[in-house]
Amino acid sequence: MFEFDFIEWLSSQVTEHPDVVLGVGDDAAILRNSEDLQVLTTDLLLEGVHFESGSATFKQIGRKALAVSLSDVAAMGATPTVAVLTFAFPQRLEFAAAQDIFRGALELAREYRVAIVGGDTNRWSQGLVVGSTVLGSLKHAGWPISGARPGDLLLVSGSLGGSILGKHLDFRPRCDLAAALAATQLVHAATDISDSLTIDLAEICRQSKVGVCLDAMRVPIAAAARARSEQTGRPPLEHALFDGEDFELLLAVDPEAADELLTKPELAGQLTVIGAFDSSDRLVLKREDGRAGPLPVRGYEH
Amino acid sequence: MFEFDFIEWLSSQVTEHPDVVLGVGDDAAILRNSEDLQVLTTDLLLEGVHFESGSATFKQIGRKALAVSLSDVAAMGATPTVAVLTFAFPQRLEFAAAQDIFRGALELAREYRVAIVGGDTNRWSQGLVVGSTVLGSLKHAGWPISGARPGDLLLVSGSLGGSILGKHLDFRPRCDLAAALAATQLVHAATDISDSLTIDLAEICRQSKVGVCLDAMRVPIAAAARARSEQTGRPPLEHALFDGEDFELLLAVDPEAADELLTKPELAGQLTVIGAFDSSDRLVLKREDGRAGPLPVRGYEH
Repeated sequence: MFEFDFIEWLSSQVTEHPDVVLGVGDDAAILRNSEDLQVLTTDLLLEGVHFESGSATFKQIGRKALAVSLSDVAAMGATPTVAVLTFAFPQRLEFAAAQDIFRGALELAREYRVAIVGGDTNRWSQGLVVGSTVLGSLKHAGWPISGARPGDLLLVSGSLGGSILGKHLDFRPRCDLAAALAATQLVHAATDISDSLTIDLAEICRQSKVGVCLDAMRVPIAAAARARSEQTGRPPLEHALFDGEDFELLLAVDPEAADELLTKPELAGQLTVIGAFDSSDRLVLKREDGRAGPLPVRGYEH
Repeated sequence: MFEFDFIEWLSSQVTEHPDVVLGVGDDAAILRNSEDLQVLTTDLLLEGVHFESGSATFKQIGRKALAVSLSDVAAMGATPTVAVLTFAFPQRLEFAAAQDIFRGALELAREYRVAIVGGDTNRWSQGLVVGSTVLGSLKHAGWPISGARPGDLLLVSGSLGGSILGKHLDFRPRCDLAAALAATQLVHAATDISDSLTIDLAEICRQSKVGVCLDAMRVPIAAAARARSEQTGRPPLEHALFDGEDFELLLAVDPEAADELLTKPELAGQLTVIGAFDSSDRLVLKREDGRAGPLPVRGYEH
């Protein structure tokens, strides 16, 4: 039977982990607690919403399901430890495709030293669904999205825009960067860019009760944003502001110490200051021509 | 917008919990670790597979999504602490229906003192999907499904069969019973009956490398199994053996101490001895006429 065969196969694939007392194949996994605090996050990926079966490979779909949760763990300044996965496989899906979906998640899990410890496998007559839930260990107080303070600098990792051309599938969750930043204790708030730079920034401001001035000149534009611009005729900056699914970290950082942070060898080139938070209730965009106006907040509509 | 409005609404509904440092509304929840060991389990409920929108209410659907995971936690002898939920709502689903799905889960969570600490909300054009992941705290070594020993007695909670008439939606996860049993340290292995008594029993035997003799005369037959029997013309016992979704606990218990356990006031009437494990590799059914034969293993086909 498909489900039992699949679970038996995947049980042979998963690797050991010091936190795991009992893994795949029981009613629940048993885990050792290695830190006083931990984080827990969950995501559901849907065919036709978060991926298209025609353009993404099965391995990419499985990889993305886990990657989006790892990115959420990074956005709390935590280190992912274990994951559970859920699957709703369409009846028409071949066994080898189900294996590839799992392999995509498993390869990423190994790379990030995350143990897959359980899950739930089902088949149905509708679209492919892959869910992931990840636990992480937290060695500090965490980076709540409500933690930005007036005067904090706004930093972003990597570069933004045009993720639909590939990065939305093969992005690297910023766990290593998060670990390096967590050690500095300079980050007040963070989130990862899933909806879009402007939507996720607006959410930091809303929850932190601060305003922000975003400097368009400083926003790091991805090569993919320029490539996408040639397809759409819209400026690359718009793609950086509104495309979403970059899965980069957006951070509110103590301004006194930001210089120190930006010049650390292990962080060099990974972060860009793109604005500053203030005590207003306004979201402002300083445009490339120097003029400031209200920040348009929009993103990829699922 | 549906998703944001829904999350804002549900943020106002959830209650506090001593283990929760940061709950709904961030990239991940932050949790305090209260025990050295914890359990983690996940389930995905699918429209047309685990429930029918026509016959189950929205509250029942949300309740069941959480209940199946609570049952898995009970089957490890653990106490559930926190949960995260995922939703794929059909575009046609009304906001009030989404609220009812959440309310169904939330009411059960409150009853079981479980905090809902996060989730992921999506909409799509296909069927309703509700996922749940639950963490539990474990104060002993756990009840692995591989832990049954030759000579152990086979016990079951409650009564079995006919769950399709209602119990598959409104069953009570056996967390209180599990807590009382865990305190006795007499349980060697456990699982909950989801697929069917015979399928889940066969899985205990397979993973524990033991045989079993199941005594048909002793199997507690639910009133619903008799009612179902009148609909199907099949004997009530068949419904008890093969229907599944009873979500009762199936336990391998130290035989020396089983008497003590069965006479404890707090457990009285909740457990029935229905067989014994042995060192063979056979699954045997002792029938009502006293004859023994191979145990047929089958269940509800999803």
